[in-house]
Amino acid sequence: MNNIIFSLPGNEVLANTLANKLNIEMGSVEIRTFPDGEYYVCIHSDVKDKTAILICTLNHPNDKILLLMFVAQTLKKLGANKIYLVSPYLPYMRQDKQFHPGEAVTSYLFATFVSTWLDGLITIDPHLHRIKKLSEIYSIPSISVLHATKKIAEWIRQHVDSPFLIGPDEESKQWINEVAEYANAPFVICKKIRYGDRNVEISIPEIKHLGSVPVLVDDIISTGTSMTVILQQLVSHGYKNSICISVHALFDDEVQQNLIRAGATKIMTCNTIIHASNQIDLTDDIANCFY
Amino acid sequence: MNNIIFSLPGNEVLANTLANKLNIEMGSVEIRTFPDGEYYVCIHSDVKDKTAILICTLNHPNDKILLLMFVAQTLKKLGANKIYLVSPYLPYMRQDKQFHPGEAVTSYLFATFVSTWLDGLITIDPHLHRIKKLSEIYSIPSISVLHATKKIAEWIRQHVDSPFLIGPDEESKQWINEVAEYANAPFVICKKIRYGDRNVEISIPEIKHLGSVPVLVDDIISTGTSMTVILQQLVSHGYKNSICISVHALFDDEVQQNLIRAGATKIMTCNTIIHASNQIDLTDDIANCFY
Repeated sequence: MNNIIFSLPGNEVLANTLANKLNIEMGSVEIRTFPDGEYYVCIHSDVKDKTAILICTLNHPNDKILLLMFVAQTLKKLGANKIYLVSPYLPYMRQDKQFHPGEAVTSYLFATFVSTWLDGLITIDPHLHRIKKLSEIYSIPSISVLHATKKIAEWIRQHVDSPFLIGPDEESKQWINEVAEYANAPFVICKKIRYGDRNVEISIPEIKHLGSVPVLVDDIISTGTSMTVILQQLVSHGYKNSICISVHALFDDEVQQNLIRAGATKIMTCNTIIHASNQIDLTDDIANCFY
Repeated sequence: MNNIIFSLPGNEVLANTLANKLNIEMGSVEIRTFPDGEYYVCIHSDVKDKTAILICTLNHPNDKILLLMFVAQTLKKLGANKIYLVSPYLPYMRQDKQFHPGEAVTSYLFATFVSTWLDGLITIDPHLHRIKKLSEIYSIPSISVLHATKKIAEWIRQHVDSPFLIGPDEESKQWINEVAEYANAPFVICKKIRYGDRNVEISIPEIKHLGSVPVLVDDIISTGTSMTVILQQLVSHGYKNSICISVHALFDDEVQQNLIRAGATKIMTCNTIIHASNQIDLTDDIANCFY
């Protein structure tokens, strides 16, 4: 396969590392914003008959998606054979049904749009819930879903003595189960009732005799509300050494400070979204898709 | 026709005025942004078998377009008969061909995308140049292109004694010609050579004996570079009373100050993009499309 990698702005580290690991040509794309806020895109590399691999993680997707479409469609126009997107974080996975009449099912609408101009998608731990497989909403011919569970488990084995894992809600069971198995650690799953974006009630099951270091694991830390509530309860149970781990770092400095204040001694994330908390590198897993 | 009007954020004034003028139901749409930056959309009105008219001017379009698509597609899903967009300012009209190999022809790509989910488009003075008609790139069944020329001419007749019009470049000839005719005023067209987004060279033709108040007219003021260069030349010719008029106000306060420093005594725009300089109201022209 004749491949060429393109980095969208902000994804240069992953793109360059992948290009080096895989010995794939790094493509040159010029992206500017005109004074009126419109994008200018120019592909400087020869892409004829090549598979173009776009590297663009899609956190805060609203102002990235038009640019990504412009790049993808222009590559196709210039003769690229296939367009693959590596988006380690896949957005719009939460509103996957109408909870109330009149709601936009953005998971489906976003997936349908993106599917019209992609031939392949590689992503890591998308927030699957009611949708069990991405192919239910994405009609992209080739979809690879990678999991961070093994790498997270490895990190826990190497860095934590006597851990016990805590999943904040039923949805997290799928990750926790696997991480616990690989890490050979016990786990509990909390019960969560959500009243709003930043308002949740969580009850932790019995945690006595499980281990000495609570490790909270979730796919996404965003507002950190769930983890904060759990951390506070852990502190009240005498645990002042909790560790928070998530695949995707969707949180800002304020959330990080809140988690630390609530009792987290470490906050670790995978490098699916560039963030100071990135400690678990998944580049090899992505690279493996192209061998 | 059973119509319902929806305002996208920031377009409430135009939407409400149109709804009142036309005696059309004002629809209720809830739009929020989740903490992770994703849009939430919920249509609270009954739209079944109605024509939904979306009001959304598309200056700085990159982070608006996904929201607009979500709203349009959801209205369709909820049984709306047709989706019309009123976008007084239409973006991505400048990169209408490949000036250099590899460039994204964003005019075409943007138009193709928008055309997939709209049944009608109403806009004002889109920046047509090499593309002569919107229907060359937009495949929307119903397209109405309105012109601000008459309203601009009216304003000049009412407010300026002995005006002479100046168009900054060949492209502006189409507006100037019409405005001059309606305003019954002489005009000249400048010659422009563009070296970059903010770097242009402009020569003004002979302007002696034309009139006493220079009125610079263009479709868009963005960086204000062209107008600034012309204003400076006018000052050097002794004209310290110039007026700048544009249809679309794509400029910020800094640009406005630059124009004033360069010699503009007034800067007037139409209300296609909400701006402090809006003085020429085109709401009636838009309303006329729906009678």
